[in-house]
Amino acid sequence: MPVPKPSDLAYVPFVSVENMMRLIHCIGLSRMLEGLATYIEDDFRRWQDFDKTPRVAAHSEDGVIELMPTSDGQTYGFKYVNGHPKNTRDGRQTVTAFGLLADVGNGYPVLLTEMTILTALRTAATSALVAKYLAPAGADTMAMIGNGAQSEFQALAMQALCGITRLRLYDIDPKATAKTMRNLAGQGFDLSACKTPQEAVEGAQIITTCTADKQYATILSDNMVGAGVHINAIGGDCPGKTELHPDILSRADVFVEYPPQTRIEGEIQQMPQTFPVTEFWQLVAGQAQGRRDARQITLFDGVGFAIEDFSALRYVRDQLGRTGLFERLDLLADPDDPRDLFGMVLRAADPDAHNRAGQKMPPAGDGSATRS
Amino acid sequence: MPVPKPSDLAYVPFVSVENMMRLIHCIGLSRMLEGLATYIEDDFRRWQDFDKTPRVAAHSEDGVIELMPTSDGQTYGFKYVNGHPKNTRDGRQTVTAFGLLADVGNGYPVLLTEMTILTALRTAATSALVAKYLAPAGADTMAMIGNGAQSEFQALAMQALCGITRLRLYDIDPKATAKTMRNLAGQGFDLSACKTPQEAVEGAQIITTCTADKQYATILSDNMVGAGVHINAIGGDCPGKTELHPDILSRADVFVEYPPQTRIEGEIQQMPQTFPVTEFWQLVAGQAQGRRDARQITLFDGVGFAIEDFSALRYVRDQLGRTGLFERLDLLADPDDPRDLFGMVLRAADPDAHNRAGQKMPPAGDGSATRS
Repeated sequence: MPVPKPSDLAYVPFVSVENMMRLIHCIGLSRMLEGLATYIEDDFRRWQDFDKTPRVAAHSEDGVIELMPTSDGQTYGFKYVNGHPKNTRDGRQTVTAFGLLADVGNGYPVLLTEMTILTALRTAATSALVAKYLAPAGADTMAMIGNGAQSEFQALAMQALCGITRLRLYDIDPKATAKTMRNLAGQGFDLSACKTPQEAVEGAQIITTCTADKQYATILSDNMVGAGVHINAIGGDCPGKTELHPDILSRADVFVEYPPQTRIEGEIQQMPQTFPVTEFWQLVAGQAQGRRDARQITLFDGVGFAIEDFSALRYVRDQLGRTGLFERLDLLADPDDPRDLFGMVLRAADPDAHNRAGQKMPPAGDGSATRS
Repeated sequence: MPVPKPSDLAYVPFVSVENMMRLIHCIGLSRMLEGLATYIEDDFRRWQDFDKTPRVAAHSEDGVIELMPTSDGQTYGFKYVNGHPKNTRDGRQTVTAFGLLADVGNGYPVLLTEMTILTALRTAATSALVAKYLAPAGADTMAMIGNGAQSEFQALAMQALCGITRLRLYDIDPKATAKTMRNLAGQGFDLSACKTPQEAVEGAQIITTCTADKQYATILSDNMVGAGVHINAIGGDCPGKTELHPDILSRADVFVEYPPQTRIEGEIQQMPQTFPVTEFWQLVAGQAQGRRDARQITLFDGVGFAIEDFSALRYVRDQLGRTGLFERLDLLADPDDPRDLFGMVLRAADPDAHNRAGQKMPPAGDGSATRS
């Protein structure tokens, strides 16, 4: 008698950290950053299709845990992400994340994936996509202030999408700069380690600030920002955490993802509610103007928005069939008769019975790793 | 040279459907329902400790996808759950769910688990806990109108917590009743299959309604409800879905979980916003009176609340160490140096290098099941 195969309905494709790293190397990091940017651009172009809501945040003294849901009416996505600046003290990441896509029509998840790495990629892809629209023509030099976990991804995305070849690095901790120099060696950059932020911004057409401290800081002061520069400010992303002096904001044309969220979390939390901003999706959709002239200062006040995660989840889902880089997670109960959940549980008691989707019950788990 | 062991920080304990079923049989379903009820009671008693928010819902024509977060300041929990009444047509569950607990202090998940089965258990445990407070003394007979996926769990919880021994079953589909009769045979009940709801409620001190249709229905009409009865109404749980005639609500003392949610989703959506209700936690905390006399009609307008899921997640987490019924999910990126996420990805490219936590890179996955 043939043993029936497990029902496909019972399993959710799961991309572990291991498989995410394999996926990056299978596709190539630069090509993946370009692919993610294309997906993000496509979703920003159809901005009106999405349910948008500010993230649902649980704040505590030490940090924040957030859920970031969105839907385009066909597909639903959300990301779980934490932000705990003190985490590095005991060897943890300040930001970790995972995410999920589901079918709006039946509510079943279609993808669960790590998003700690994927968030770094989508953040870098978004920054570079925005810079592609706003950086001055012929930009080849970027200053990077803050050389933490985001810095290399930012650099490679700016290289892939905007042609950046020269990097000027600064961090308050020289060890962080040394780490970034080491990691980016042999990646086609002309690299300079700088002793001050002032030194880092010399000759740079793009200035990226990605520092991690949860406080009002002034990473850039007004006199450091010359005419024609594009500022990519991504470190200030929660209430009470900013990087730029307000005078810079007043001189610049500011582009944001989703104003209701950015006014709370971004650099512009320092400015009045009426401070004028342009929504980046309007640029992508051809409804707003980007850079007007070579002396204009443009500023992307990036805080990260749910639609970028949605795009990244779509991208990863679309690679699964081709690469096979996923596992099948036993996340959903799937009784033969949907009304007979109890019967499924009941039949699992008999170790000789065929349970659930006809599968024989495997021996009890031992808490070992699930890596394939 | 000893190979370092993978860091514990990299893994999240994961309870699959398979392991949830094993856990139920390891503990025993009745004992697990009692355990869950104790955890729920403990959390309702400290109601004021919790961040409470109505669920975050994404509604569509076919159903709803919801996120239900809560936190007690130490631990954060959320559940993903869908409700799609038409799902049974193509062999899917109308409700599937999974959930997560995390440490508020560092934002790291400490448990990911299936919750399709667990939700059925916590819903039944909540109903029985409420009935323990409100049902008339000496109640031994329950009418169960609606014999779907919830029905057996409700019956066993009422048996374990309230001493129900006689069940009178009715469903619009006799096949559903036959299924429940079959599943509950040998579980210590005196079972009757009834041809009408009127027949089912005869002699019952507790009436449970758990039907699934998404519409305004009148499962119970006023003349069917005699003095002294406790009604456990759990099927009406979203806007536009109710089971009881409003006249019953007017005659009964109504107990709810969280009024802001129940007024939108529960039976009382049919009543004015000022309709008086008692919050069940007040009963548990000794701040409100339950049943006053033998003729009073009490009604639990249950819709399911995030704190019940939080309690269930706590319960499951507390069993992990003892039972070992979990897998370790590779969900969190954990570089040796928290600032060196890129370095971790970079080193994963070399199949001979020790990646991440010192582990050698296993061969590429083949998309096979992750069951242990």
